[in-house]
Amino acid sequence: MVWVLVLNAGSSSIKYSLFKMPEEDCFLRGNLERIGERFSFIKHMLSGSGPFQKRLKIAHHREGINFIFSLLLDKEKGVLKNLKEISGVGHRVVHGGEVFRQPCIINKKRLLKIKEYSILAPLHNPPQVSVIEACLEYLKGIPQVAVFDTAFHSTLPKYAFLYGLPYELYEKFGIRKYGFHGISHQYVAEEAGRRLKRPLQDLKIITCHLGNGCSITAVKGGKSIDTSMGFTPLEGVMMGTRPGDFDPSIILFLLKKGYSIEKIDHLLNKKSGLLGLSGVSNDMRDIMRQLRRNNLRAQIACDVFVYRIQKYIGAYVGILGGLDALVFTAGIGENQKELRERICKGLNFLLKATGARVLVIHTDEEQSIARQAYALLKNEDKSK
Amino acid sequence: MVWVLVLNAGSSSIKYSLFKMPEEDCFLRGNLERIGERFSFIKHMLSGSGPFQKRLKIAHHREGINFIFSLLLDKEKGVLKNLKEISGVGHRVVHGGEVFRQPCIINKKRLLKIKEYSILAPLHNPPQVSVIEACLEYLKGIPQVAVFDTAFHSTLPKYAFLYGLPYELYEKFGIRKYGFHGISHQYVAEEAGRRLKRPLQDLKIITCHLGNGCSITAVKGGKSIDTSMGFTPLEGVMMGTRPGDFDPSIILFLLKKGYSIEKIDHLLNKKSGLLGLSGVSNDMRDIMRQLRRNNLRAQIACDVFVYRIQKYIGAYVGILGGLDALVFTAGIGENQKELRERICKGLNFLLKATGARVLVIHTDEEQSIARQAYALLKNEDKSK
Repeated sequence: MVWVLVLNAGSSSIKYSLFKMPEEDCFLRGNLERIGERFSFIKHMLSGSGPFQKRLKIAHHREGINFIFSLLLDKEKGVLKNLKEISGVGHRVVHGGEVFRQPCIINKKRLLKIKEYSILAPLHNPPQVSVIEACLEYLKGIPQVAVFDTAFHSTLPKYAFLYGLPYELYEKFGIRKYGFHGISHQYVAEEAGRRLKRPLQDLKIITCHLGNGCSITAVKGGKSIDTSMGFTPLEGVMMGTRPGDFDPSIILFLLKKGYSIEKIDHLLNKKSGLLGLSGVSNDMRDIMRQLRRNNLRAQIACDVFVYRIQKYIGAYVGILGGLDALVFTAGIGENQKELRERICKGLNFLLKATGARVLVIHTDEEQSIARQAYALLKNEDKSK
Repeated sequence: MVWVLVLNAGSSSIKYSLFKMPEEDCFLRGNLERIGERFSFIKHMLSGSGPFQKRLKIAHHREGINFIFSLLLDKEKGVLKNLKEISGVGHRVVHGGEVFRQPCIINKKRLLKIKEYSILAPLHNPPQVSVIEACLEYLKGIPQVAVFDTAFHSTLPKYAFLYGLPYELYEKFGIRKYGFHGISHQYVAEEAGRRLKRPLQDLKIITCHLGNGCSITAVKGGKSIDTSMGFTPLEGVMMGTRPGDFDPSIILFLLKKGYSIEKIDHLLNKKSGLLGLSGVSNDMRDIMRQLRRNNLRAQIACDVFVYRIQKYIGAYVGILGGLDALVFTAGIGENQKELRERICKGLNFLLKATGARVLVIHTDEEQSIARQAYALLKNEDKSK
């Protein structure tokens, strides 16, 4: 029996799941939310049982990990007798900078590097580092594997990842396009290959990860050659509360109007996108409901959302030089059929000209992390 | 004999040309540069004669207009006996906001509106207003026509001109995509229709204005439906010293690193683009020379330039739903054959699938302004 634990830490949350490998069977999964707030909240699901939910108080990620471990060992809610049964832990790490091009087993040097990249992902890397450190302490001797959200995009050619900014900004601060959602894009691209029953090597695929965050990737021969998110997850198509692409001069304009950096930061990360345009909600389900009630602002939010996705798809068909599959995934991508149809209808010419198949594929980042961590551990074993 | 004078004022320059209409014969043209600097410089060309060049001192645009008028009346260098022979003046005005959707004869109310839009084009509208005011005074009774750089793009649908930003920013400050180079895009799109011998109404055209500033426009049935420049001329494809699209978060990142607003403004407008990436020059001719000498930074600047244009063309083929003509114009677009070929080679699939013709068309913004001003004046006469 090989158990792989997957941990995915956000700024105030830890998602966890326990997989039996190589079968990729998920025995339990859960989400601990609102860490550090007045009340935290856990939702825990053991396969075959109903969900266990509880309001509790968790001060920090380290305490959260402790609590999650106690659940794994719980006689009713858990499946393990001893934490030593875990063969390895797969950690989602958002930013791997230019160094981490594939998953790796964490050692001191690598952990330091992940910490360094906190400057590029200030909301994500620090809590992930906390969780890794807790695991290194509590699970001594059990390999900790980092799986990076940026790694799949490390194959972007230089002309695609460089901005038209002074080269010195790239050299000095690492300012370039990194891309995110890589674990998801890679997962659904590989699944698309299986569905088309053709080797990934021969395929041109565009993957649209449309969830609360949205990004689009051009995948050629199994490799990411361009992606819509950039230096940060703000760039690209429009999202729930983030704007995607806009004229950067607007930030200078607002600064000159007296807006503070903090206000602009908040506005761009929390008040833009579907929410900002519609004035209704950041949730596409609400937007679609309002749209059916002829709410004009919901209509325009939806129109802009669709249009900006269409432009990215067109751009990527151009640079791919064709298209075999257009893949939709994540919350909106998987569940909003009407929206997918609107996107495709406007691109009728391109879809016909390429003969591309349109696929809806459920993404499972946790499963992908388990798979990647397990593959690495198996290889390590062999090389011993 | 109908004379139309065309004036095109920049922040420290005035370009002028005198057309005989409706033949569109240009009898003289010139450029007064470095207004307000220690030494100004004029280059004046009378059709059929050699150029007249002179270093002189011109303190402001008003004085510049005076000097230009003296040249128009000069026995050797000019063609007019009296300024009253001028039937009308066509002024290039960069920003017409949301109000000016076509050329118009300037009156007090309209001039006030153009002044208001100075906030959206702080480098361009103010000198153009100065020149208009000087003409209203010196050429009393002669109609002054404003031809707007934004007007051609006033047909953009709302879902194309809105950013994914809070709607309130659009309502409060007019933050939206306006687009620029409209006079040029319209001119070459119309010429493309003539070359294809098909009515513009039926055509899908992409026009690439690649000069020191660069922008790309999707033209459907003679109307601009999308364009790469946005709220300001910073957005879009990469240019000589401007970056084009980049993750706006980078500005917040640099501010947090201690960069001042002024420094960032300078960096984005004067130090980015071809110059910033190559470290060599903002001039594509220099870049191409260095590229032949295997200068790696010039190579990457050129690669990024080409790639970003290709992505826009792909996006616009998608939203146009096909393509009849891909048009290149302006300095780089007209003269850099190798670059055009590289752009098209990478888009081979799309160009084949659409069957689009690739055209090189010389743009002449002054001629277009003369044409538009004359058409308006003729109509006004009829309606009297």
